[in-house]
Amino acid sequence: MIVEEKTVKSEKIYEGKIINVRVDTVELLDKKYSTREIVEHPGAVGIISVTPDKEIILVKQYRKPVEEVLFEIPAGLIEYGEDPGHSAARELKEETGYRANRLKKLFEYYSTPGFSDEKIHIYLAEGLVEGEAEPDENEYIEIVKMPVDKALEKVKTGEIKDAKTVIGILAYCNFCS
Amino acid sequence: MIVEEKTVKSEKIYEGKIINVRVDTVELLDKKYSTREIVEHPGAVGIISVTPDKEIILVKQYRKPVEEVLFEIPAGLIEYGEDPGHSAARELKEETGYRANRLKKLFEYYSTPGFSDEKIHIYLAEGLVEGEAEPDENEYIEIVKMPVDKALEKVKTGEIKDAKTVIGILAYCNFCS
Repeated sequence: MIVEEKTVKSEKIYEGKIINVRVDTVELLDKKYSTREIVEHPGAVGIISVTPDKEIILVKQYRKPVEEVLFEIPAGLIEYGEDPGHSAARELKEETGYRANRLKKLFEYYSTPGFSDEKIHIYLAEGLVEGEAEPDENEYIEIVKMPVDKALEKVKTGEIKDAKTVIGILAYCNFCS
Repeated sequence: MIVEEKTVKSEKIYEGKIINVRVDTVELLDKKYSTREIVEHPGAVGIISVTPDKEIILVKQYRKPVEEVLFEIPAGLIEYGEDPGHSAARELKEETGYRANRLKKLFEYYSTPGFSDEKIHIYLAEGLVEGEAEPDENEYIEIVKMPVDKALEKVKTGEIKDAKTVIGILAYCNFCS
């Protein structure tokens, strides 16, 4: 049986730059209670962009939480009140310099719904036009164009291991190529 | 250019049941500093299990952070010091009743490396033997067997939206079927 959990108490733990953390006390069946640790996140976009030569555009970026440099699809936070399609166009341009004639929303997913509400909106960029990247101050990234079949191989071997990038590459190979 | 970020200060914010939260101050280029909000997580496993009739075994579960009932592949936390393969066998049995003659590690990925170190290990269960589920106390789940092509369609339409499940289904269709 599936039980929806009614919040009986909610305690704010932390309000940060990007995330907030709260602990909710929830009522289960038969007047039993438990707590849920929840990381609130504004949501993000990820953009699959493939050149006419069948190269996917990736960025390499250092990620402090895992202390590794990761291959990622261009991505970024949705700013307050912003339409995700606008975020996708902005981040693609800032991180890679490319503009897309059309940004097609493919689907959205929850990164890790056991402890966070983060939702990622995945877009496919069509009709790419090259330009100059405009990274944010303090955003140190390197653009890498990689043949799609090589990227798929790197998912299989675990060299590409960022969830939105794994999803973007696998979804492209299943649905778009 | 990619800059690895050296921690100059680390502040513990919260120590919880499943997650811990800390804020690290990091040094960037030219003696510039920034902060990174980091959610520490013990890691988890997700198991792709497909019956001889080409039905993938999913569980439906209420997830408080997103306040929705989600379709998910069987999954669970890695207990302290536990081998992930052992976690996968345990969670498959507890959540679905199935045992696997062989659990093959496919790959691992980071759920959301912008703010968390959570790593998910994805396994393929082979040689399934049916049995009785043994859910944890207070774990309310429902087992659903779904044809793989229907599950893939539900990824495309956004009805399946849990990251590990999206990845599990897409990876199965690309690498295993």
